[in-house]
Amino acid sequence: MDNLLYWAGLSAVAVNALTGVLDAGRKRMDLIGVMMVGSATALGGGTVRDVLLGRPVFWISDQVYLIVALATTLVVFFVVRGLRLPPRLFLIPDALGLALFTVVGTQIALAWQAPWLVATLLGVITGVVGGVLRDVLCNEVPLIFVRGELYATAAWAGALALVALQALGVSPVVAAWAGMTIVLGVRLAAMAFRLTLPTYSERQ
Amino acid sequence: MDNLLYWAGLSAVAVNALTGVLDAGRKRMDLIGVMMVGSATALGGGTVRDVLLGRPVFWISDQVYLIVALATTLVVFFVVRGLRLPPRLFLIPDALGLALFTVVGTQIALAWQAPWLVATLLGVITGVVGGVLRDVLCNEVPLIFVRGELYATAAWAGALALVALQALGVSPVVAAWAGMTIVLGVRLAAMAFRLTLPTYSERQ
Amino acid sequence: MDNLLYWAGLSAVAVNALTGVLDAGRKRMDLIGVMMVGSATALGGGTVRDVLLGRPVFWISDQVYLIVALATTLVVFFVVRGLRLPPRLFLIPDALGLALFTVVGTQIALAWQAPWLVATLLGVITGVVGGVLRDVLCNEVPLIFVRGELYATAAWAGALALVALQALGVSPVVAAWAGMTIVLGVRLAAMAFRLTLPTYSERQ
Repeated sequence: MDNLLYWAGLSAVAVNALTGVLDAGRKRMDLIGVMMVGSATALGGGTVRDVLLGRPVFWISDQVYLIVALATTLVVFFVVRGLRLPPRLFLIPDALGLALFTVVGTQIALAWQAPWLVATLLGVITGVVGGVLRDVLCNEVPLIFVRGELYATAAWAGALALVALQALGVSPVVAAWAGMTIVLGVRLAAMAFRLTLPTYSERQ
Repeated sequence: MDNLLYWAGLSAVAVNALTGVLDAGRKRMDLIGVMMVGSATALGGGTVRDVLLGRPVFWISDQVYLIVALATTLVVFFVVRGLRLPPRLFLIPDALGLALFTVVGTQIALAWQAPWLVATLLGVITGVVGGVLRDVLCNEVPLIFVRGELYATAAWAGALALVALQALGVSPVVAAWAGMTIVLGVRLAAMAFRLTLPTYSERQ
Repeated sequence: MDNLLYWAGLSAVAVNALTGVLDAGRKRMDLIGVMMVGSATALGGGTVRDVLLGRPVFWISDQVYLIVALATTLVVFFVVRGLRLPPRLFLIPDALGLALFTVVGTQIALAWQAPWLVATLLGVITGVVGGVLRDVLCNEVPLIFVRGELYATAAWAGALALVALQALGVSPVVAAWAGMTIVLGVRLAAMAFRLTLPTYSERQ
C-alpha cells in the first residue's frame, strides 16, 4: 500500500508538472518562469495538505519529488517548445493528476488520523490546489470555478467513495483504485456531456 | 472562558460561512463552488493563525467546525436561493464575524504564549483573512482595501484594547466583550459616517 | 555566523518594508493599508520558508522583527509622504532585499537539515515571496513574472553558488557574501542590459 501511494504520488507530481508547463507555454514565460509554474502545480496541493495536517512537507524531507518535478518541466519545455498543441489537450493529464492526487491525499490524511470528513476534504485540496495555483500564476480563471465541469465535485465524489468503501471493510488498495476511477469517470463525463450542478442565483 | 471561546468560535464560523454564501450567490456559482467559498470564508482566518502559531489546525482536530461551516452553507444556499437581497445586507454579519474572530484569535494567541504585539496581529489575521479569501474567490476588491471603511483598523483597535485591559488585570471574559464591542462599534461607525485614516499620496 | 544571519535578516526586513511602502504609496492606500502591505512584504518570504520547514515562524517567536517592520513602514510613511519619487527608485532596495533574504533563507534551510536542492529553492522562496505578495496586494503584475529581468534566476544563481562554495569547504560567512554579490550582480546587470532567458513559445 505504501509502495502504491509512493508511486502514485510520483506519477501525480510528473503529470501535474506537465500540465503546468503546457499552460505556462501559452503565456510566453521564460525557462525559470515555466519551471516555477510547473513545480508549483506539481507540489502545491500536497504542500497545503501537509501544512494543514502538521505533517513534514513531503518534498522537503524527500528531495526526489522536487527532482521529478523539475526534470519533468525541463524535458517538456525542450520537447514541446515550438510544437503547436491543441488548446484542450492538457485537460486529460489534468484529470489524471486530479484523480491520483485526490486518492493519495485522502489516504495520507486517513493514515494521519484525520476525521473522515476532514480526510475527504484534504483529498480534494491535494487534488485541486496545484491546478488553482497554475491557473492563478498563468492569470486564467481557475478550472475549478468554471461552471458545468464538475471539477471539485469529481474529486469529492471519489474521496467519499474511497472512505465509504474502506469503512465497509474493502482493502485500501481496492478502495484507492475505485476512488481514482470515480474521479476520472465523473470528470471526463462532465467534460463530454457538460453535466452541471444546481446553480445559486438571486432573482434579478 | 474556554467555553466562551468555543461558542464564539462556532458562531463566527457560522456567521462567516453565511457571508461567504451571500457573496458567492451574486456570482452564479454552483452548489460545490458556494460550499467551497463558504467554508474558506468560515475557516480561512483561524487556519492561517494556527499554522503561524505552529498549533494543530482547529478544524482538522475537531470535525464540528467543518460540519457547522458546511451545514450553514447548505441551509443558506437553499433558503436564500431565489430571494432578492439588498446588496449591502451582508455587511452586518460580516462586521459581527470580524468582531468574534478577532477576539477569539487574540485570546488563542495569548494562550499560546505569543508576545502581545504578535497576538494582536494574529487576532486581526483571524478576523480578516476569511473575508479576503471570500472576496478574492468571488473576484472582488477585498473589503479590507476599500478606503474609508476602517476594516483592519477596527479589528486592530479591538485587539489592542483587549490586550491592554488584560494587562491592567481585567478578567479575560470582560476584556473579550469589550474588545468585541470596540471592533463592532468602530466598524459600524466607519460605515455610517464614512470615517477615514490619513492617506499616503505622493505629490503628483 | 548566527550574528551575521540575524543582522542580515533584520536589514532585509527593513529594506523590504521600505519597498512595500514605496509601492503602496502609488495606490493611495490609508495608513493601515500601507502598514499591512509593508509588513507582508517584509515578513512574507521568511514565513513561507519557516512553515514549509516546520520551523517556528521567525517573527512570532521574536517580536523584534515585527517591530522593525512596523516602525520602518511608519517612518517611511511620514517621511516620504508628499515627496515625489522617481517610479523606478525602489528597484535598488528591492534587489538588495532579494539578495539578503535569499542568502539568509538558504543558510537557515541548510542549518535545518534540508537537502541541498530544497535549500536553494527555500532561499529563492524567502527572497521572492515578499515581493510577490506586495505586487499582488498592490494589484500589479509581480516583478518576478516580468520577462527579461532575471528576478528568480538571480536569486537561484546566488543560492546555488552559496551551496556549491560551502560544499567545497569555503566558510559559511564567505559563501554568504559571495552569494549575495551574485544575486545583486545578476539582478542589476539584467536590469541594466535587459538580459533574458530562452522563452517557451508554441508555434502560432
